[in-house]
Amino acid sequence: MTPRRWAVTEEQDHGQTPATQGSRIDAYVDRYAARATGMVASEIRALFAVASRPEVVSLAGGMPYVTALPLDMVGELVSDLVTRRGPVALQYGSGQGDPHLREQICEVMRLEGIHAGANDVVVTVGSQQALDLITRIFIDPGDVVLAEGPSYVGALGTFAAYQAKVVHIAMDDQGIVPESLAQTIYALETAGAPIKFLYTIPTFHNPGGVTLNIARRQQVLDICQRAGILIIEDNPYGLLGFDGEPMRALRADNPDGVVYLGSFSKTLAPGFRVGWALAPHAIRDKLVLAMESAVLSHSSFTQLAVGQYLATQPWHEQIKSFRELYRERRDALLDALESLMPPEVTWTRPGGGFFVWATLPEGLDSKAILPRAVAERVAFVPGTGFFSDGSGARHMRLSYCYPEPDRIREGVRRLAGVIEQEIQLRDTFGTASARDHQGVDTPGPDLA
Amino acid sequence: MTPRRWAVTEEQDHGQTPATQGSRIDAYVDRYAARATGMVASEIRALFAVASRPEVVSLAGGMPYVTALPLDMVGELVSDLVTRRGPVALQYGSGQGDPHLREQICEVMRLEGIHAGANDVVVTVGSQQALDLITRIFIDPGDVVLAEGPSYVGALGTFAAYQAKVVHIAMDDQGIVPESLAQTIYALETAGAPIKFLYTIPTFHNPGGVTLNIARRQQVLDICQRAGILIIEDNPYGLLGFDGEPMRALRADNPDGVVYLGSFSKTLAPGFRVGWALAPHAIRDKLVLAMESAVLSHSSFTQLAVGQYLATQPWHEQIKSFRELYRERRDALLDALESLMPPEVTWTRPGGGFFVWATLPEGLDSKAILPRAVAERVAFVPGTGFFSDGSGARHMRLSYCYPEPDRIREGVRRLAGVIEQEIQLRDTFGTASARDHQGVDTPGPDLA
Repeated sequence: MTPRRWAVTEEQDHGQTPATQGSRIDAYVDRYAARATGMVASEIRALFAVASRPEVVSLAGGMPYVTALPLDMVGELVSDLVTRRGPVALQYGSGQGDPHLREQICEVMRLEGIHAGANDVVVTVGSQQALDLITRIFIDPGDVVLAEGPSYVGALGTFAAYQAKVVHIAMDDQGIVPESLAQTIYALETAGAPIKFLYTIPTFHNPGGVTLNIARRQQVLDICQRAGILIIEDNPYGLLGFDGEPMRALRADNPDGVVYLGSFSKTLAPGFRVGWALAPHAIRDKLVLAMESAVLSHSSFTQLAVGQYLATQPWHEQIKSFRELYRERRDALLDALESLMPPEVTWTRPGGGFFVWATLPEGLDSKAILPRAVAERVAFVPGTGFFSDGSGARHMRLSYCYPEPDRIREGVRRLAGVIEQEIQLRDTFGTASARDHQGVDTPGPDLA
Repeated sequence: MTPRRWAVTEEQDHGQTPATQGSRIDAYVDRYAARATGMVASEIRALFAVASRPEVVSLAGGMPYVTALPLDMVGELVSDLVTRRGPVALQYGSGQGDPHLREQICEVMRLEGIHAGANDVVVTVGSQQALDLITRIFIDPGDVVLAEGPSYVGALGTFAAYQAKVVHIAMDDQGIVPESLAQTIYALETAGAPIKFLYTIPTFHNPGGVTLNIARRQQVLDICQRAGILIIEDNPYGLLGFDGEPMRALRADNPDGVVYLGSFSKTLAPGFRVGWALAPHAIRDKLVLAMESAVLSHSSFTQLAVGQYLATQPWHEQIKSFRELYRERRDALLDALESLMPPEVTWTRPGGGFFVWATLPEGLDSKAILPRAVAERVAFVPGTGFFSDGSGARHMRLSYCYPEPDRIREGVRRLAGVIEQEIQLRDTFGTASARDHQGVDTPGPDLA
């Protein structure tokens, strides 16, 4: 054995009071797995503890507005579930998930053109766990994952935890750029790099707020099929579009080449933690085994609650009312940006989902700005959190899903003021010093 | 890139009807991570699908008897939770878990002599996830985990999934043998093997049914402390003892050297999937980060439901009535074994928990016997599932937690008949051929 080194560890109390007993020394500092070194708390975590105060308008969080749900109905439904089906709802379930719920999930996916059997669905603890299990079964340290730049912060955290190398693919207001995808694959294959899959959020991207257009969808499918690269299609916002019918999922046109990740966190509620993966048979088999070794089985109670909700409540109507709610907030955010932001600032115009991706003028650093913004009682997520390589300093993610429209306008007013000051400072003293960036920013669950 | 090989994969439909569409070919067979090769479905899985039929007496499952719960009360409580606290219960929570529930968990642990702060508790998706996260942050491929022989099948599956090398420590009817622990550590350290931790179930062992006595507890703590080896104390059954007060936990006497894993699956219900880890600060920090990258956060709904149950229901009384229920079933099993089993068969006499560990006479193989037992409408888990090296063929785990006492007696009658036949066959034709054993048997969630 190597002798134990004794080292004092930084406390990361996640905004809570420190424990009153036990040693602050990490006696096991040299015992952790290599992958654990990739697990670092976000530098901005502490700041977000402040940002969660009521006086701060948070344009940072990705929390759905669950208050819009018919709580009495849901309450009745869960009590009915326990009294009528308690012995099942309170017992262990199967690793793959409740068979009836998996049937219902297939119905939901049909809205996006997917025809699949319940036997190819694995119910997971939010789609975050599906992402973790997929990474677990495919990624060896050093393997390459392709992802849009920017990409979902929670996915980047998971890829880092499995020591994957994330290579970003360029994205514009029409989504991922097929030429960039093809060129990157060619370059990596030429260099002999092991590409394991493409991780993409084609519809209402987090954080980009853009959607992959129809022509490009076929191109992306073709490029990946030719290269034999699996596609992980993460689609939590697909049913939250503001105009017309839901987009056709990538999975709808390639059952064998795409693993589809879905979730009820945005169309119902995240508190149940019910998501799923739809995968080709062989991959599904591995996912079920990985699921069992990770948690044995998901909560029967929350699975049956979601199933009961889908069976007894007008869930299509509920999703429609969510759409109206979020559309109004998106409009409030876009109008406020239009009328209040300095002309040098630009942003995307989402057709659905929760997020707007804003770009600051040359020389400004969103992470350097965040503390000043929080002091002015407004919060956002700096762009660096959405890249694995520390780029993105000129960008910020603005969420419109949670605050009321008036609060959104007020938040933008405060943020515009801060940015104007920053521009003046830049013009007077030159570029704001960009702080170095270490690791992946993971602002915590409520901000994912 | 290596060119893609095409290979047909075995279907493992987990006892369900095969999917009606999609390819049976695994196009990604050579793309999986090295750890995925360690994930194999149990050979006996299909058999247990049969064993779950009502006419079969299952002495195999570890399912608690949740029917004994006050379902109306629980139903009321969850509906009240949604109607009164819906916006919190249905929203994302923190990665570490609900702060109030963590306080309540500390109260529960006080019954076993543990004094801890809520800030050192991480709520997990059952204690299985705590086990997964601990393994994730400590185990690199080839690292050594010490565990009793036999050990919990779900833990062995998780260790295998992270490519750990499990070294078993001898156990007798007083629990783990300290001399064996000390000698094994010495031998491994001399050989330069990286021992990451000791995984132990000191109280009402699964599958052993034995409890580490008080004298040995101190010895095990001393041995591990001297060697600087972390102890993972898995204690789901600690409050389900049939005589006297709960045993004092190992963690109670060494806060810095023990990670304690607890669960509400056996004292309340597994359907909520609420377990926890109590860990030294530095390890807790890593566990929270690992938790967030694995699932973002546990279900707020089930966490608050458990908290509400603890706050409003007479949970001490409920646990007492569970104890009485399981005591009666243990007595039924032990009496039936005493009066019906051939004299060559021996077994342990648990003072609590769910399991009896039986040993067959020389020359019998429990896995070879299982199909015949199932044909006679009785099921058990063969001993080989509880060892990482395929040993244990002469042993079987008998669970008394789920069937009613009369069914238990009937099950033992059937099993005794099968074993008698096996003994006659052995005496006539010699040793039953032990089938080779591949991988770790994971009989699935309901059997863990």
